[in-house]
Amino acid sequence: MTTSGTTRDRADDAGDLLVSRVVGSFDRCQDPRLKTVMGSLTEHLHAFLQEVRPTETEWAKALDFLVSVGQFTNDERRELVLLCDVLGASAQVVALNTVPGGSTPPTVIGPYVIDDSPEIAVGDVLPRVEGVPCWIEGTVTDAAGRPVRGARVEVWETDDYRRAGAEYGNERAAPRAHVMTDSSGRYAFWGSVPSPIEVPQDGPVGTLLHALGRAGHRAPHLRLRVSAQHLRTVVTHVFVAGHPLLEDDCVFGVRDGLVQRFAHHPSGTPAPDGRALDGEWASVRFDVALAPAGSARALTAPLF
Amino acid sequence: MTTSGTTRDRADDAGDLLVSRVVGSFDRCQDPRLKTVMGSLTEHLHAFLQEVRPTETEWAKALDFLVSVGQFTNDERRELVLLCDVLGASAQVVALNTVPGGSTPPTVIGPYVIDDSPEIAVGDVLPRVEGVPCWIEGTVTDAAGRPVRGARVEVWETDDYRRAGAEYGNERAAPRAHVMTDSSGRYAFWGSVPSPIEVPQDGPVGTLLHALGRAGHRAPHLRLRVSAQHLRTVVTHVFVAGHPLLEDDCVFGVRDGLVQRFAHHPSGTPAPDGRALDGEWASVRFDVALAPAGSARALTAPLF
Repeated sequence: MTTSGTTRDRADDAGDLLVSRVVGSFDRCQDPRLKTVMGSLTEHLHAFLQEVRPTETEWAKALDFLVSVGQFTNDERRELVLLCDVLGASAQVVALNTVPGGSTPPTVIGPYVIDDSPEIAVGDVLPRVEGVPCWIEGTVTDAAGRPVRGARVEVWETDDYRRAGAEYGNERAAPRAHVMTDSSGRYAFWGSVPSPIEVPQDGPVGTLLHALGRAGHRAPHLRLRVSAQHLRTVVTHVFVAGHPLLEDDCVFGVRDGLVQRFAHHPSGTPAPDGRALDGEWASVRFDVALAPAGSARALTAPLF
Repeated sequence: MTTSGTTRDRADDAGDLLVSRVVGSFDRCQDPRLKTVMGSLTEHLHAFLQEVRPTETEWAKALDFLVSVGQFTNDERRELVLLCDVLGASAQVVALNTVPGGSTPPTVIGPYVIDDSPEIAVGDVLPRVEGVPCWIEGTVTDAAGRPVRGARVEVWETDDYRRAGAEYGNERAAPRAHVMTDSSGRYAFWGSVPSPIEVPQDGPVGTLLHALGRAGHRAPHLRLRVSAQHLRTVVTHVFVAGHPLLEDDCVFGVRDGLVQRFAHHPSGTPAPDGRALDGEWASVRFDVALAPAGSARALTAPLF
């Protein structure tokens, strides 16, 4: 311990030389973008190691953790995405890829991928929905405000977070569907008022969250994916204005422009589509503006 | 594209705020070391993202790659260790954990773990060995130079790199064994002169190496793990002096003090143990000094 100052100096000198040799090993890479990315990764990775100086035990645990995240991942549960979510990396990448100019901001897509869903008509009820009914409506436009007919508005509700992914199997019981906008760009459906939920914590990321003293709550939100020809697909959420968890969303997904007032209506209030509901209900409006498809930053070549 | 300057400013402001919120989410962590490590990881990870600004496509590919590394990993093949090896991260951790004061420097352990091996007597031939016979001998001492009796000197040769890990199954055909030092701390065995080898490239790390234009060669070396009671186990290599690959070892494992001259002897030269060999043979001396066990930087608490 008395020689630790010396140790630090020697190790850091050797460490800096090592970094330059690793970066130099990319000199013959034919893909300039890959070379840049790997050079930057190497420098930041080594800076992290030199800063925290992991013991061999810590390093072995870190590698075991990362392997377990990969091995926990399957088609229905993307544990590495969840890890990036709770470390804000997903939100960072979303922010870096946000197109300026008034289109609806995207947010994190989360650890479950929902690539197909039943179609319902405008005004229909989301299959299997439970809770306080909520009339969700809006208009899809392009960035210039022109309504988009035939845009696909996909929604998936909260049950896929409340239950473990494995419980779904191939049945995918969580309420989800898509609706196509009509000739005036309008969509509407009956869903439910979103509740506070938690990210899944039955895997290695849950273990990490607990060790970090973090709760894993998400602010209540509706999840939407909106796509249309020649326009940029947006994955976004509609958050419930005024909810205390807006300040404590564990994936850092809350963004300006995505927080909306959910109006609550007492039992007996006529619904927008003329239905007579037996109990209270709510409504929210969420208009979506899509950027041009070409506005996404695109790769000129595959990374590898 | 004309507004990209504005984009960068907005995204970076939002990104910096995000980093502080993520680090703030660790405030209730009860493990101060974990809090420090995760805070540092978060800052370096986000700095990397803000620097390279990955597109969504690049980010998705990066996550797929890391998942595939985890899923390629099993008991016989540690692909994540290999990834850390070729990025110099393993060598960095080894350097940061090297004990000062004259003990033999450690180097990377590599992607294959060999946790058991047959015992052979001092002077015996390594089972299954092929190539130019090489008499390998040395003395194991503590840091003060006192010989250590009963130290375990474990060796595993190069076949586990030449063949794919899967070919081994449970048979583990690669030459490997351990020898216990005698009362004067001496070990010796017949192995073979190490050849240039390559790291395994049948997995995702191989794909990355090829994309980077890197060859995956390792400088020829013997691999040793030396352990004894009350002393710090060392995993180290004996590299062949004068070999051109010393400058191009793809896991950055070459260190001062580990490069030794392998003497070559013409056919007919009497061997050190009196054997008459039918052909040329070589010899190398490699003394090992072990630091005290307490000299390893230890965790006061598990990381989580």
